[in-house]
Amino acid sequence: MTHVHGGPHLRAAILAVGDELTLGQTADTNSAWLAHRLHQLGILAVEFNTVPDNLARHSAALRRLADVADLVIGTGGLGPTADDLTRPALAQAMDDHLVEDMVALAQVEAFFAARGRPMPDINRAQAQRPSRGRSLANLHGTAPGLWGIVNGVDVFCLPGPPGEMKPMFEQQVVPRLRPDPGRVVRTRALHCFGIGESDAATRLGAMMARTSMPLVGTTASAGVVSVRLRFEGPATPADADAALDLTERDIRTRLGEFIFGQDEDRLPSVVLALLRTRGETLACVESCSGGLLASMLTDIPGSSSAFLGGIVAYANPAKSALVGVDPHILEIPGPGAVSAECAAALALGGLERLRADHALAITGIAGPDGAVPARDGVPAKPVGTVFIARAARDQPADVRRFEFPGDRAAVRRWSALTALAMLRFHLAGLPTPKLLRQVSP
Amino acid sequence: MTHVHGGPHLRAAILAVGDELTLGQTADTNSAWLAHRLHQLGILAVEFNTVPDNLARHSAALRRLADVADLVIGTGGLGPTADDLTRPALAQAMDDHLVEDMVALAQVEAFFAARGRPMPDINRAQAQRPSRGRSLANLHGTAPGLWGIVNGVDVFCLPGPPGEMKPMFEQQVVPRLRPDPGRVVRTRALHCFGIGESDAATRLGAMMARTSMPLVGTTASAGVVSVRLRFEGPATPADADAALDLTERDIRTRLGEFIFGQDEDRLPSVVLALLRTRGETLACVESCSGGLLASMLTDIPGSSSAFLGGIVAYANPAKSALVGVDPHILEIPGPGAVSAECAAALALGGLERLRADHALAITGIAGPDGAVPARDGVPAKPVGTVFIARAARDQPADVRRFEFPGDRAAVRRWSALTALAMLRFHLAGLPTPKLLRQVSP
Repeated sequence: MTHVHGGPHLRAAILAVGDELTLGQTADTNSAWLAHRLHQLGILAVEFNTVPDNLARHSAALRRLADVADLVIGTGGLGPTADDLTRPALAQAMDDHLVEDMVALAQVEAFFAARGRPMPDINRAQAQRPSRGRSLANLHGTAPGLWGIVNGVDVFCLPGPPGEMKPMFEQQVVPRLRPDPGRVVRTRALHCFGIGESDAATRLGAMMARTSMPLVGTTASAGVVSVRLRFEGPATPADADAALDLTERDIRTRLGEFIFGQDEDRLPSVVLALLRTRGETLACVESCSGGLLASMLTDIPGSSSAFLGGIVAYANPAKSALVGVDPHILEIPGPGAVSAECAAALALGGLERLRADHALAITGIAGPDGAVPARDGVPAKPVGTVFIARAARDQPADVRRFEFPGDRAAVRRWSALTALAMLRFHLAGLPTPKLLRQVSP
Repeated sequence: MTHVHGGPHLRAAILAVGDELTLGQTADTNSAWLAHRLHQLGILAVEFNTVPDNLARHSAALRRLADVADLVIGTGGLGPTADDLTRPALAQAMDDHLVEDMVALAQVEAFFAARGRPMPDINRAQAQRPSRGRSLANLHGTAPGLWGIVNGVDVFCLPGPPGEMKPMFEQQVVPRLRPDPGRVVRTRALHCFGIGESDAATRLGAMMARTSMPLVGTTASAGVVSVRLRFEGPATPADADAALDLTERDIRTRLGEFIFGQDEDRLPSVVLALLRTRGETLACVESCSGGLLASMLTDIPGSSSAFLGGIVAYANPAKSALVGVDPHILEIPGPGAVSAECAAALALGGLERLRADHALAITGIAGPDGAVPARDGVPAKPVGTVFIARAARDQPADVRRFEFPGDRAAVRRWSALTALAMLRFHLAGLPTPKLLRQVSP
């Protein structure tokens, strides 16, 4: 492949660097973020690659990726320490040597000065760049980025910490990108809850053929099935949008009320928006999910306009003291903390104590321990057994029993999302169907 | 590179497949998990690669990775739909064709039968395998895995959902691995809180040289600085452990009380273990972190033995109604919800209402909105301003003001971890130093 430097950026490759990544100690979230942003800008990521802190592998990866893409973006390896090798790796891939950049050095020194500290000696290395490359200013940390040309292809190297990488991408990389003005990449996603991936695919049928344009695919995670549409090719943006509109309408006919949102929508944001529209409020009371549901809701900016707060009633005394659950429910021979009765009492207690219009309550066995054996006509409760109650003022609570799959984290995630899905059906004025993994009533 | 099939597995490459990954819609957590597990088994991951749902790129990646590693593990692309291409991609990389596996078909049918449903037609494709390959049973979903040989190298293809991938790896792949008995890979990590990465590196000095064995590197995330040690090479396990012991002792001398744990230890698990040792209990009261601290604690199996529960006092009325904060603190001209006074009142209210031995409280401005302008001698509170209070029975609360960097998620994460770090210093009997990002007192 030959590249004319200055041609359009159509296909990107993304490189993440660090022993902590290839040793599995840290999850790489940068590559997905970059791919998503590039895609919004009309540039398709065709490959991610991750290599350890190893000069030879790192520079070889930069060269190889410059051969499969016309834009390479790397993250990591720009710190001040001896295991940060992006500077020499880029120089090697460019057949270049390193020089000290006076402006970059001044910026690193200024970063420390602003915090009232002298620059440690080791940070001086961060001001190095390939002699034919450029330093990229970092306003949020000490590591300047780098920009160089490898085999005619633009290579941008950004710091690993997302809080530094993201603003540097926006400020230093985006203005230098050249998406093809004649080519359009447009995506859309429709998110469903309450239907399995196989059933969704069956309903979509031939729409999912690999030869269709827009392309239609599905992904599933903890009960959420996302249908993803992609238009890619030479077209005007208006034509691409029209094709997506047509396909979206068809998908909506086939999946109907299971679709709760699209694109950036998530169940917490959709539920909060529905509450806001109705001018109503929510409280939640959690046992086995232990604050995860509240955390998902408060992760959304502006959630305070509809979410009042919650109670993590983890130990049984907290269920009584904080939420007013009758101790007879919790103690043998009562039904116990993991029961429909307890879920309903938690939801009603949350409604009342937070004076909310709606409440969600979750109690169950997230595992790995805690399974309850059968006794006297009461069937066993295996790990994954969860009761969810949705209550609204002056209405009977909707309480359901589930058996969720997977480990502790998966059971907690399924629980929180299923609770939100129950409320979403209710707020949207739809009957709540029997949900995935629901075992009764 | 030539490979003799049946030789040891020394270097692994990990491939993740899916448009949702390269489009940045979904984060890949499988690769890091696999690398970590392989490493524990003495096999080093030398590269991760991610490609879209594209037959040519997929089979080319399998071939290339079989050339840089002697073991390839792939995830994803084994679903029933038309965009699941791992079966033909592996066949193509093997120069083979697909056949239907009778046993695999029976297993897929049995999976549906156990759930009282007939197998949808499209799931039949999941029983296909290369004619010279093997199907791997999936006890947790419909997608059988695949095992084939590409260029003399073992290639295992596992399903994308972690709940199916992980058990299949343990049950079907691990017994087939052949780590080199003469070569040792051993890692260790020491986790610090309260010291910056540059300062830690300065204290470690020449230990971090790339020529040292064990190799020593650092990573940083939301205030946690991890020092990672790796011994790799021909040695007995005992010699490798002795070398790591020596280096660890040296690191402990240099970083002392900042080290809160090692390896799998996380601040929540360390704090819970310290509480358990002392037979004491914890409650937490959260405003801007909105349940994240409680969720981090309850994510740990067995947390119920020390964590009683918490209150997410998000809206101001909840702070008064649920925790008893004096409304005069919350209302102008009082100091307001984001203040040392409010943090202390939340912590003391949590102690009392949950009858706990210790309480942590967090109140602040996670952003992006909510910054408080200066008024009458009270300085402004920018986004990222957070007050954290740690209280114990019959002792004055320790209340500190921070300005945390980054977006909403980062501020919430820093807040929760810093609160845990304050409690950890206290429980360990150490004076709590001025922490990173602390601005007063």
